[in-house]
Amino acid sequence: MKVVIIGSGAGGLTVASNIRKYSNKAEITVITREKQVAYSQCAIPYVIGGEIESFDEIVMHTPKYYGKQGINIITDSDVFEVDSSGKFVRYRSNNPKNTNEKEDILYYDYLVIATGGSPFIPPVEGTDLKGVFKVRTIEDGAKIKKWTEHSRKAVVVGAGAIGLELSYGLKQLGIDVSVTEMVPQILPRSLDPDMALKVQDYLESIGVNIVLEKALNKIIGTEKAEEVIVGDEHIDSDLVILSTGIRPSVKLAEQAGCIIGNMGVTVNERMETSTSCIYSVGDCVEVYDGITGQKTVSPFGTTAVRQGKVAAKNIIGRYAVFRPVLNSVVSVIGELEIGAVGLTETSARLNNIDVIIGRSKALTKARYYPGCKPIDIKILCSTEGKILGCQIIAKETVAERVDTMALAIAKGVKCTELTEMEFSYAPPVSMVVDPIVLAAENVIEKMNGRK
Amino acid sequence: MKVVIIGSGAGGLTVASNIRKYSNKAEITVITREKQVAYSQCAIPYVIGGEIESFDEIVMHTPKYYGKQGINIITDSDVFEVDSSGKFVRYRSNNPKNTNEKEDILYYDYLVIATGGSPFIPPVEGTDLKGVFKVRTIEDGAKIKKWTEHSRKAVVVGAGAIGLELSYGLKQLGIDVSVTEMVPQILPRSLDPDMALKVQDYLESIGVNIVLEKALNKIIGTEKAEEVIVGDEHIDSDLVILSTGIRPSVKLAEQAGCIIGNMGVTVNERMETSTSCIYSVGDCVEVYDGITGQKTVSPFGTTAVRQGKVAAKNIIGRYAVFRPVLNSVVSVIGELEIGAVGLTETSARLNNIDVIIGRSKALTKARYYPGCKPIDIKILCSTEGKILGCQIIAKETVAERVDTMALAIAKGVKCTELTEMEFSYAPPVSMVVDPIVLAAENVIEKMNGRK
Repeated sequence: MKVVIIGSGAGGLTVASNIRKYSNKAEITVITREKQVAYSQCAIPYVIGGEIESFDEIVMHTPKYYGKQGINIITDSDVFEVDSSGKFVRYRSNNPKNTNEKEDILYYDYLVIATGGSPFIPPVEGTDLKGVFKVRTIEDGAKIKKWTEHSRKAVVVGAGAIGLELSYGLKQLGIDVSVTEMVPQILPRSLDPDMALKVQDYLESIGVNIVLEKALNKIIGTEKAEEVIVGDEHIDSDLVILSTGIRPSVKLAEQAGCIIGNMGVTVNERMETSTSCIYSVGDCVEVYDGITGQKTVSPFGTTAVRQGKVAAKNIIGRYAVFRPVLNSVVSVIGELEIGAVGLTETSARLNNIDVIIGRSKALTKARYYPGCKPIDIKILCSTEGKILGCQIIAKETVAERVDTMALAIAKGVKCTELTEMEFSYAPPVSMVVDPIVLAAENVIEKMNGRK
Repeated sequence: MKVVIIGSGAGGLTVASNIRKYSNKAEITVITREKQVAYSQCAIPYVIGGEIESFDEIVMHTPKYYGKQGINIITDSDVFEVDSSGKFVRYRSNNPKNTNEKEDILYYDYLVIATGGSPFIPPVEGTDLKGVFKVRTIEDGAKIKKWTEHSRKAVVVGAGAIGLELSYGLKQLGIDVSVTEMVPQILPRSLDPDMALKVQDYLESIGVNIVLEKALNKIIGTEKAEEVIVGDEHIDSDLVILSTGIRPSVKLAEQAGCIIGNMGVTVNERMETSTSCIYSVGDCVEVYDGITGQKTVSPFGTTAVRQGKVAAKNIIGRYAVFRPVLNSVVSVIGELEIGAVGLTETSARLNNIDVIIGRSKALTKARYYPGCKPIDIKILCSTEGKILGCQIIAKETVAERVDTMALAIAKGVKCTELTEMEFSYAPPVSMVVDPIVLAAENVIEKMNGRK
């Protein structure tokens, strides 16, 4: 069995290594545009900020490592043709040293399109100036890192998780940072405005300038970026990072005749595209939201890994399905951990879902225990008390609590059940009544109030 | 409505404050043997060790605070008679200053017996010597703390969580510490021998002497403790702490005619005893194990709080039930967090439950992220793959992971489901594939191997 995988991100490489896990015989080839594979995209902001020492550290494996497992990785190459009837792909090496065989062909029994996404570049003047960067690959990261050596004032366009993580990192380097955002809040995909404000307060307290409700208008400079105009506001800047989201890379899937939805490549729950013997995983596919049922994206490494495992199992003849997503996220911005899962109030409103909100402001440890930290929780429930979403901000233990809530949402747990649940307790690590329980009790009080 | 509560621990006070929450009119009286109320028993080892500065800090509220809420607290007093047909209790003040009204009577509509447990004192010679302590109340704690000022060599008898937390605390004070245990492992109630060994290794690495499989034989000394004999081993010691478990205090319940089981006061799921209008909560009651169905104890503050809420709701005329327990626990011993929930291999064997074991040795953060720490997970599943138990050891994030697993067990989640679950990811706080998922995948591999 010949498997060809286009793309070496978390999705593509998970398919490769999982097929190998189940089958010694499969011939597995990964073709990638990149020079380095198996690195952590999510870690790029932390290398730029200096929390992680160098980009070398975030590279988990080399192509050689995969080679030893019988996974052939062709780097620095573009697939330019997918022929789904002939079942082959043609690719071209971009490596100038590779003079003889610049183009080649690969036949497949199964093709996996894991082409990911590419950064959205706002269609305005000046994005091609020096000092203007996108942030997607490890190469992008290295270029930014180098540029920061001489930078004094930076503008990060886009206040999503990566933009904010970057803004903190740049601030750590002693650079003046502004973050600009088109909509009236930061972290609009994950948090509601009230919770986002707490993160904004923190960022402002450490000196990050937040500019809301201003779209990128223009980047001005002669040769190098000198000034950014958002809305009508001018901000001096010698470094501009466009962190304005990614768009799924669906060109090859389209060429292969796969149906493309509004959000990305259409796949069924086994990660099969509409074209026979072609699977697709990762940032390029569209998925279903587990609460609203709407099509959405889930551009997370964890999603890509889970999809990759599902695709691999199905390719080797087992059966596995990928479920609708709750899009659990966690982001670490300086001292703050910010997490969310499931429905937000904003998306509830958009989808006409009536919700009851519960909140707790509590502590991560017993209140008398040294080092206990405040924790803010917001829970969203259906009018029947079923948990639909949760947002958490604290200086510790957010990720794991989000995981608990993700499980609660996935299993249809009600607030009353949550208040009856066992939470482990020891003064150095928890409160005798867990902050999640306090938030759930708040929901129940409101439900009783409504009666 | 007159409610009398005997006992001012987590259970009794939760009943009191929850009845007050629902009802302004109820006359609520708490009678307690103790002088101080509303303190954290679990925090005592940390005050002794100096992590928490003083015993004052672990007192959450004074009797006055409760008085302001219309909850009358009678301290330093013993109930010596419960008349369940006349519906009254008689009590005696132990305060020598209280000369006139040493005895009094209180009528009730509902009585709550929250008498907790008393430390088990092994029936051997020498436990009455000076320098021999039990550890239950804040007064016990204060006596130990004072004694440590002149102590050089301590023996802690009993290697449960409190014994080990204490041993670490004493070590921090520069005292030579031995912990002795009758059975061949430490933490026998929570952990299996293989996991317990990891904790033992840690304690030994910091210089705590662990003596296993030796029962307390005798404490020798003239006036003060000088030597402890466990099995045939003599250990010099000027401080002996008996941390040998607690026995439910059921005397008053018995006197009231309540049925007493092997493990404590028998209650139904509404926390009612067999005697009309008498409830019981906390360490003195017996509960059901959620996995084995056997009667057991759940001597945890969190259990007492949850039971107290249930009793309060039922007393004020609502309906609430207390479910069988999974006995989630977490203990912090120095740098280690140790957590467990549900079935252990040992209890599986005792109950003839066939289990499959999954393990993972992973990290608490991305492996390249500074400060990532090892984490050890053991999952127990039924032969159908349903999660029945979990044990976790790491230097962080254990409590919250135990909570996730408690929810998984309570909801009957299978390992396959767990591997499909969403876990949030950011390099500073998690791995791209969660350690819990790795352990669940290990179970699945073994299940496939069995087929």
